[in-house]
Amino acid sequence: MSDSLAVLYARENRGRFLEELKDLLRIPSVSTLPEHKPDILRAAQWVADDLGRTGMEHVEIIPTSGHPLVYGDWLHAPGKPTVLCYGHYDVQPVDPVDEWATPPFEPTERDGSLYARGSTDDKGQMVMHLKAIESLMRAGGKLPVNVRVLIEGEEEISGEGIESFVRSHPERLACDLVIVSDTEMFAPGLPSLTVGLRGLCYTELVAQGPASDLHSGSYGGASPNPFFALCQIIARLKDDQGRILIPGFYDKVKPPTEAELKAWASLPFDEAEYIRTEVGSTKLTGEPGYSVLYRTWARPTLEVHGMPGGFTGAGAKTVIPARATAKISMRLVPDQRPEEIFELYREYVMSIVPEGIRLEAKLLNMGAAVVVSTDNPVVQVASQAMADVYGKETVYIRTGGSIPIVATFQEALKAPVLLMGFGLPDCAAHGPNEKFLIENFYGGTESLVRFFERLGG
Amino acid sequence: MSDSLAVLYARENRGRFLEELKDLLRIPSVSTLPEHKPDILRAAQWVADDLGRTGMEHVEIIPTSGHPLVYGDWLHAPGKPTVLCYGHYDVQPVDPVDEWATPPFEPTERDGSLYARGSTDDKGQMVMHLKAIESLMRAGGKLPVNVRVLIEGEEEISGEGIESFVRSHPERLACDLVIVSDTEMFAPGLPSLTVGLRGLCYTELVAQGPASDLHSGSYGGASPNPFFALCQIIARLKDDQGRILIPGFYDKVKPPTEAELKAWASLPFDEAEYIRTEVGSTKLTGEPGYSVLYRTWARPTLEVHGMPGGFTGAGAKTVIPARATAKISMRLVPDQRPEEIFELYREYVMSIVPEGIRLEAKLLNMGAAVVVSTDNPVVQVASQAMADVYGKETVYIRTGGSIPIVATFQEALKAPVLLMGFGLPDCAAHGPNEKFLIENFYGGTESLVRFFERLGG
Repeated sequence: MSDSLAVLYARENRGRFLEELKDLLRIPSVSTLPEHKPDILRAAQWVADDLGRTGMEHVEIIPTSGHPLVYGDWLHAPGKPTVLCYGHYDVQPVDPVDEWATPPFEPTERDGSLYARGSTDDKGQMVMHLKAIESLMRAGGKLPVNVRVLIEGEEEISGEGIESFVRSHPERLACDLVIVSDTEMFAPGLPSLTVGLRGLCYTELVAQGPASDLHSGSYGGASPNPFFALCQIIARLKDDQGRILIPGFYDKVKPPTEAELKAWASLPFDEAEYIRTEVGSTKLTGEPGYSVLYRTWARPTLEVHGMPGGFTGAGAKTVIPARATAKISMRLVPDQRPEEIFELYREYVMSIVPEGIRLEAKLLNMGAAVVVSTDNPVVQVASQAMADVYGKETVYIRTGGSIPIVATFQEALKAPVLLMGFGLPDCAAHGPNEKFLIENFYGGTESLVRFFERLGG
Repeated sequence: MSDSLAVLYARENRGRFLEELKDLLRIPSVSTLPEHKPDILRAAQWVADDLGRTGMEHVEIIPTSGHPLVYGDWLHAPGKPTVLCYGHYDVQPVDPVDEWATPPFEPTERDGSLYARGSTDDKGQMVMHLKAIESLMRAGGKLPVNVRVLIEGEEEISGEGIESFVRSHPERLACDLVIVSDTEMFAPGLPSLTVGLRGLCYTELVAQGPASDLHSGSYGGASPNPFFALCQIIARLKDDQGRILIPGFYDKVKPPTEAELKAWASLPFDEAEYIRTEVGSTKLTGEPGYSVLYRTWARPTLEVHGMPGGFTGAGAKTVIPARATAKISMRLVPDQRPEEIFELYREYVMSIVPEGIRLEAKLLNMGAAVVVSTDNPVVQVASQAMADVYGKETVYIRTGGSIPIVATFQEALKAPVLLMGFGLPDCAAHGPNEKFLIENFYGGTESLVRFFERLGG
């Protein structure tokens, strides 16, 4: 396929596109931290301004119960499909900040990658959509398909605002398909469409022992200790082999198809290399009898993220803290329902609370797992667009991460969701030194241009 | 016994003594936090200045590897015993600071108590010694016994400076007995001499899973999780009944005598009241078959104080942290040796490290348990001095807390150690809203005046 004017435009302007992305990355739009609310609003405005400059219409910053949505559309391609582009302008927190080689909100190019919080997840990938639209508009004065853009600011937290908007205004988002770039390629240079996402159920356990902090010298041996109690409870959530012990937890787990398992086995995956360069631990963990890809893509997991409370400073403070918290999430797979899983979890932890401890189980956020059908012709179109750019056949993969809104799009808009992602396994999304391979920022933008062109042509 | 001039002086000047104590309490001399180093030095200077004003000689701020000691003496009572007064000018951290009703370093009188960090532990009690000395000097121009004063600034942390000083300069501290006011009375108005202290072995377990923080979506189910691993390890340190599972841990535990157990049973102790007003939990915990006093005074315990690492902010960050730490201490009883116990602990935790986790066990500080013989005649003198003030027979108790230097004094100076304390069980040492009953500040000062007088007379 010859290179269109829009593809050439995208190539010619890619240096500027990268500088514009850096502008957005400099805004510390951390959605979970209230003190960053002004940055959230700046980031939303940045997206709205870009959409307006590009020629998108009805550009609007839509307030929600939390952080605002940004919407824009261009619907002047009669008879052509309507695509809804989704992404998010919010980012994860940056701690531990002292592990970043360069500051998380000062985007820095190094070894062909752009380092910054949000570079891959998801500002870098979201901006590819904006720049693909710009390339098509500037090169041809119009778009080959109808396009709606909906960008949210709560993907890293509850996602409540978009969830409620999509469910209450499906007509404003009517489309034939949704396209999302918030996932990874399986390996550098290997075009990948993600057809499965795990769901999420994020909780906090709050344990209370004594009424206020006590001296462990005076009270150790008589007062309940909420940290010890949480450790006892957590140790009973999974066995030594990583199998989750919550009764009924696995009842609705639907295994992948034989064809899918066969395809995964043929992917270029080297477990020793994965341990060495990606995880960096002495050994992997997880349920025996399942491959690494199976465990991280199609098996549920339960993880502890942090245990705030008590004394966390340097040195030796001898306190029995009044309260301790554990931040615990579960990744879910089809057909586990997050609300059902939370109920099973809550009942189980309440049944094993040690004596003297008052426990509260809170649900912080949730989303269902998704599997996208590969039968839909648009999947083939997307697959071909990526293959055009990367010169290789596109592979179908899953990811262990969660994008709760994807399930909502499928349900509320009755539209298939394409997960065309350009992150890489070592991009460190959510960790220190998050990065985006600059070649993929360019390749992703071009893939999207080609996808829109093929879809409209 | 009629009231001496020194006793009258102490009574007349008690309002000023209290104001002077408040001055010292305003200095936030938190020994474990490096940013408070200047406050540590100010507190040491405050003590030295007070000793100098009182007429003590050879007043000196003695540098150590850590925070300085303050020394002074008055040795002009030939033929009389020499007493070493020990106390500490450093305090515990104040977190959680938002649970304090009034700021921890703004001493506030409320309901007959003085609220401030250090009010009981140990500035308030240490200042009683200074003011008893002042009362005797001002009233009589001399002291009835020879007195050395040694005040340290590392009691709440390692105590390394004083430990090394006492062991290397026992001749500079030669004495017939040591007197310490850093313990509690059993109940308000009930004079108490503490004859047993638990020892301490304070550790940190540092667990490393992946090389850097990972996204739990992508890696959950394959990467080891250091928090989950610590929970598994900690849950194996004690059973559900509070019995410590470290092999050999109880081998050298020496039970209290039958006479001691009988005396404890006759103390005014109401377990229901203790749960309600002191602990404030739904139930107590600890080994079955032992009374609360036995469990907290003469049985070892193991407590978790905090688990730093990972994500501890508000909201839902989904990280598998690279590292997690658990701050864990054990309280020890005679004849457990801290260094032996640490070795047993280290071997045990290393034997139960989950796969994929690298674990390090660090010893932060330690001290041996102490039992003081009640046969020594000075114990009777002290007992009588307190009885004079409070009008009740003095009881002999133990405490679950640890004062590691006490064991060192006994060993290095070959002198008995008197623990004449005036804190109360609800004084909240180490917690928010630490307080000192003002009556006990006065009664303690007078008890010390009378003790010195009886000892010299």
